[in-house]
Amino acid sequence: MGAGILSDLLTEVLIPVAAVVGIAFALIQWLIVSKVKVTPGAGQSGGNGKNGYTEYLIEEEEGLNDHNIVVKCAEIQTAISEGATSFLLTEYQYVGIFMVAFAILIFLFLGSVNSFSTKNQPCTYATDKSCKPALFNAIFSTVAFLLGAITSLVSGFLGMKIATYANARTTLEARKSVGKAFITAFRSGSVMGFLLAANGLLVLYIALNLFKLYYGDDWEGLFEAITGYGLGGSSMALFGRVGGGIYTKAADVGADLVGKVERNIPEDDPRNPAVIADNVGDNVGDIAGMGSDLFGSYAESSCAALVVASISSFGINHDFTAMCYPLLISSMGIIVCLITTLFATDFFEVKSVQEIEPALKKQLIISTILMTVGIAIVSWVALPSTFTIFNFGAQKTVKNWELFFCVAIGLWAGLVIGFVTEYYTSNAYSPVQDVADSCRTGAATNVIFGLALGYKSVIIPIFAIAVSIFVSFSFAAMYGIAVAALGMLSTIATGLAIDAYGPISDNAGGIAEMAGMSHRIRERTDALDAAGNTTAAIGKGFAIGSAALVSLALFGAFVSRAAISTVDVLTPKVFIGLIVGAMLPYWFSAMTMKSVGSAALKMVEEVRRQFNTIPGLMEGTVKPDYATCVKISTDASIKEMIPPGALVMLTPLIVGTLFGVETLSGVLAGALVSGVQVAISASNTGGAWDNAKKYIEAGASEHARSLGPKGSDPHKAAVIGDTIGDPLKDTSGPSLNILIKLMAVESLVFAPFFATHGGILFKFF
Amino acid sequence: MGAGILSDLLTEVLIPVAAVVGIAFALIQWLIVSKVKVTPGAGQSGGNGKNGYTEYLIEEEEGLNDHNIVVKCAEIQTAISEGATSFLLTEYQYVGIFMVAFAILIFLFLGSVNSFSTKNQPCTYATDKSCKPALFNAIFSTVAFLLGAITSLVSGFLGMKIATYANARTTLEARKSVGKAFITAFRSGSVMGFLLAANGLLVLYIALNLFKLYYGDDWEGLFEAITGYGLGGSSMALFGRVGGGIYTKAADVGADLVGKVERNIPEDDPRNPAVIADNVGDNVGDIAGMGSDLFGSYAESSCAALVVASISSFGINHDFTAMCYPLLISSMGIIVCLITTLFATDFFEVKSVQEIEPALKKQLIISTILMTVGIAIVSWVALPSTFTIFNFGAQKTVKNWELFFCVAIGLWAGLVIGFVTEYYTSNAYSPVQDVADSCRTGAATNVIFGLALGYKSVIIPIFAIAVSIFVSFSFAAMYGIAVAALGMLSTIATGLAIDAYGPISDNAGGIAEMAGMSHRIRERTDALDAAGNTTAAIGKGFAIGSAALVSLALFGAFVSRAAISTVDVLTPKVFIGLIVGAMLPYWFSAMTMKSVGSAALKMVEEVRRQFNTIPGLMEGTVKPDYATCVKISTDASIKEMIPPGALVMLTPLIVGTLFGVETLSGVLAGALVSGVQVAISASNTGGAWDNAKKYIEAGASEHARSLGPKGSDPHKAAVIGDTIGDPLKDTSGPSLNILIKLMAVESLVFAPFFATHGGILFKFF
Repeated sequence: MGAGILSDLLTEVLIPVAAVVGIAFALIQWLIVSKVKVTPGAGQSGGNGKNGYTEYLIEEEEGLNDHNIVVKCAEIQTAISEGATSFLLTEYQYVGIFMVAFAILIFLFLGSVNSFSTKNQPCTYATDKSCKPALFNAIFSTVAFLLGAITSLVSGFLGMKIATYANARTTLEARKSVGKAFITAFRSGSVMGFLLAANGLLVLYIALNLFKLYYGDDWEGLFEAITGYGLGGSSMALFGRVGGGIYTKAADVGADLVGKVERNIPEDDPRNPAVIADNVGDNVGDIAGMGSDLFGSYAESSCAALVVASISSFGINHDFTAMCYPLLISSMGIIVCLITTLFATDFFEVKSVQEIEPALKKQLIISTILMTVGIAIVSWVALPSTFTIFNFGAQKTVKNWELFFCVAIGLWAGLVIGFVTEYYTSNAYSPVQDVADSCRTGAATNVIFGLALGYKSVIIPIFAIAVSIFVSFSFAAMYGIAVAALGMLSTIATGLAIDAYGPISDNAGGIAEMAGMSHRIRERTDALDAAGNTTAAIGKGFAIGSAALVSLALFGAFVSRAAISTVDVLTPKVFIGLIVGAMLPYWFSAMTMKSVGSAALKMVEEVRRQFNTIPGLMEGTVKPDYATCVKISTDASIKEMIPPGALVMLTPLIVGTLFGVETLSGVLAGALVSGVQVAISASNTGGAWDNAKKYIEAGASEHARSLGPKGSDPHKAAVIGDTIGDPLKDTSGPSLNILIKLMAVESLVFAPFFATHGGILFKFF
Repeated sequence: MGAGILSDLLTEVLIPVAAVVGIAFALIQWLIVSKVKVTPGAGQSGGNGKNGYTEYLIEEEEGLNDHNIVVKCAEIQTAISEGATSFLLTEYQYVGIFMVAFAILIFLFLGSVNSFSTKNQPCTYATDKSCKPALFNAIFSTVAFLLGAITSLVSGFLGMKIATYANARTTLEARKSVGKAFITAFRSGSVMGFLLAANGLLVLYIALNLFKLYYGDDWEGLFEAITGYGLGGSSMALFGRVGGGIYTKAADVGADLVGKVERNIPEDDPRNPAVIADNVGDNVGDIAGMGSDLFGSYAESSCAALVVASISSFGINHDFTAMCYPLLISSMGIIVCLITTLFATDFFEVKSVQEIEPALKKQLIISTILMTVGIAIVSWVALPSTFTIFNFGAQKTVKNWELFFCVAIGLWAGLVIGFVTEYYTSNAYSPVQDVADSCRTGAATNVIFGLALGYKSVIIPIFAIAVSIFVSFSFAAMYGIAVAALGMLSTIATGLAIDAYGPISDNAGGIAEMAGMSHRIRERTDALDAAGNTTAAIGKGFAIGSAALVSLALFGAFVSRAAISTVDVLTPKVFIGLIVGAMLPYWFSAMTMKSVGSAALKMVEEVRRQFNTIPGLMEGTVKPDYATCVKISTDASIKEMIPPGALVMLTPLIVGTLFGVETLSGVLAGALVSGVQVAISASNTGGAWDNAKKYIEAGASEHARSLGPKGSDPHKAAVIGDTIGDPLKDTSGPSLNILIKLMAVESLVFAPFFATHGGILFKFF
């Protein structure tokens, strides 16, 4: 066997260094973005930019008053930022209560495993050795949970802050050129991407080293306790995604239904009372929610890999460098993404609207290719040439190049899923164009075609996931799956940068409209936004694909920890779990869809009320009451996020306690295989409808023009599809990732309890 | 152990007697229906009816010309009947080719198991005994397949013939009273129900006895061969459901989009060129397709129970009566349904519109209560007090009362599913009323609420299925599941009667409209139809619930036959099967939805063309060209049914041959647990939209009137929802039952081949 080339000391140094480099890079990007001033008169100060753009402003050309516009932009930005901050702080109050309550629950459940005894106990796997008492595992799991939760909240909050800092700056830069605006939005996105990836790694690394001070040689207990980090991250992500998703879509649907459909005013028109709520929603849902989500995936896949490694030869032989393989992969990912980012911001420049989407796609391709090399290097230096991996009771021999393939296949499967998602949701290809075409015969055919498209878009991603699972499982059992998930997430910094770029551009467009800027600026931000729509769909594809792999890895770790060697579908206990688990995504979606629907109805009534009762509103002479709409969204999302949250958090606890680990295994497998399909189809259907509408609006081809213009019957049909797609793609679809991951990680954390006390219903009968 | 009370000789007599009684009862009902004449002047001939209705006609009251109306009704009936017959015959030509090709495939695959040897072989389970050669099993399986296929086609065809015979008669009776019309429609439905149930039983019984002449004591081979019957039944059902479903919905969607939405003419208006195609569609889709579907479920659950019993103590001890337990249950079911039917047709009478739905619901309750007693009797007389059941390699001891519980829980779970479905799809309850209410804010919220309703409606049925599975599996392993499915289907004659009643009433309404009859008659037929809509949803609930149980039973039989003792989710082979299997319902739905969408687009263009180019069409002075629309539906459905059909039929063959039985097990389990959810949510969403629209149209409450009248904005939004729901509830939803059953039964039939030659891809690597 023997150790890898990399020394333990070097590993101890390299990981935090990579994290710090990531954070420093993020700060530099922030600094560059902050050079764009949102104080009047700043626009002209630039002179010739370093990319050689000529710095004249559209306003100067069109003779508009630059001063007023900049002031307006700053005002709107402040309003959005304050709305988002206030919502997140309110959300965090509720989530904070949950966090404390759940922390107590973790402590009580896990502490009770060995009756709160402070005596050492025999280890679970190496039964001849003595491990730390269950009570201390309970304490450290609770601490890890709180750490993960707080890191997740901070990630989301920082993302939101950066996005609301960048949106008006993007608008102002759009006056100069589309390339400037693109770079501003993209840089801001990468601030978020790098901060999140680096923070996640750093906190985990520090926690590991601190926990080690107590655990010493008891790596079983150490890595079992550290899984609380994943649970904390993901449970916060759930509330972030669901709460943020309901917020943003209630506002969006409400604003569209009255503004666009009934009153025939443009999107983001300042006369629409729900417009601020809509823009706030983008930041709390698509930015803060998604940030928490991907942080959760990252934390969970690291924890799943670590916990399996701890009972494999890495852990048994106390080979620290090999043990840290998942963290080294993430460290390498930060460096690779850093280089990749330079391709978009410094090595090349975007000069026209047509170059935006290719530039973003190039980011994905470059990071994937570079990362493949990176994985090879890490696998070569960090791993022994041969080692063994725990495989449900047995140890399986694995070679280092086999593990390289596991990580690489995850990475490339992510790219495949990304591109398939793009094919089905970008209006450059025939699927979305067909959907747009079906608007000719009205909203009904649009919906039928859109649903069919969503169903169809599931096929290739599922095959990609299946192949990754088969290959990585065959090579390295559940550890293979965990590192494949990590591979898919290794370029998370770039992925998040691209993802965050979308809502920032969307907001930039909103600000341009609200500030009454020239339609040419709006055209530029619209082009940025359209590319962002597609990349958002790609990001969701990544999130879902990685969630599938992560939850399978967590599931495997759970099964190992719960000491069951087979999960046999042919036993009734497992099968009923499987079918009920497959039902959960539907139950969950029913709740979230209904919540968005009800909240949107309230929003519609309020917006209608304002239009009907405030004189001068339609004429633009009086300002609408934005605050009431913000309040409706806030109240609805806080209230409505509780039932779906409870469903996800309580199911593993109830099933595990009452029915035991076999049924719970069935539930996890069922929720996984069914949830992935619902999530992919929901988010692609929604993305396709959105872009079908944009396709008609943009009128870039003969075919598109024959369906338009705005306000034509096909366009109205397309708007209906877009509105239906909103909760599918931004609330229920992406929340399902979290459902499947969270139930798995929760089961893993509570596995010691279920294994000891679970299944009381069957014991009773 | 010992045998049951019932002697083998009596069993041999009782089963065919019950079948013949069922057929005789069906013929009597037909005779009664045929007393309603569709020749002019017949209406008045009745005098005082036996239920004491006063026999005056609405036309007499309103001074309309009765003679012309009757002639018109007869004409329309003939047109619908001819259209349906011609479509089914065309469909059967294509299906016939498939049937022959697939029969050859079965023979070749199964014959090759033992290299076409004519020598006896050791039995699979009782390895010390000698069984008939695999070659003969191949021949008999092929014959059983053809028998099942032909019985299925005949069932569908007869059902369609009866329905098209009854529709105009129902219209004409509606002139007398709503009760008369109800009885005519219901009697016609029961003709179909009893013919189908009795034929299915009789053909299976005769085949069994004929096959026994060759097989003698080799019951393993005998019951293995007989499973071909289930495969035949279900594969025809697939084409029937998919082809018929595309036909009916292409016509319906096309007719609605131009007629109702664009031209603002009523449903079934004779000026609409697609109106005949629409009515033909009801008969080929909802009647012939559904008949084949439920016949398939019935045949499969019987075969699944028989094949498991043959390797249990019943088969090993050659206890013929106990072996025939499934057939005796079905025989008892026919008698119970016969008594139940009398409650609707003779013991009570429907006097007003409000009594229709309760009368139909009473049918379900009465049949369930009576059948519970019936099951107890059969379990008591036919079964030994103790026996053993094959349980994946072991034998499990079971008591006769335990088996009673298995059948009874299936039966009652069916009722629960039925009532839950009613709750979510009938406009008498709040879920549909909420959906209707959401039409206030337009089509988008209607669709969001409708989708949420469909997702939510999955919860209780899944729990009902899970409880049935757990109880019946715990009592009697896979045999328990098979008889639970049989229990759910034991009242199939009544279920089908109620089901078929719906499309007959729908057609009756269409004929009234087309014949230009009084709006009071249309109101009566609309009331019949509304009740039929709800019962159709209930019927679909039954079909899906039983399909879930049937396919699990078949899956169990397949696993037993393929000699795998566990299906472990934690092996990569199984897991990739599971996740790909869970994807198949989406792939399948994508195909069928897209097919309906494309065919509907063609239909819309043709209908628009006729309205635009045929002068006098809108004024009603010129007849439209119905034939072209019929042709569009026919061509589209024949062409479009092939890809989804191929997906379902080829998947088990490809997976089994290339990847082997473990992966195939995963695919079956995945498709089952995911497909059930998609099927239930799709059909309930569609049903809810349909009834939300009807709720607004009927305007029976203050709330409903506030949303109406016809043509109001909320009503238009409701029509869009209804149109979207059409392919969901009548094409893709119900076809999914067949997908999950058919893949399971096909795997079972081909199990000997897969067990011998399967998995070549894994063998190769």
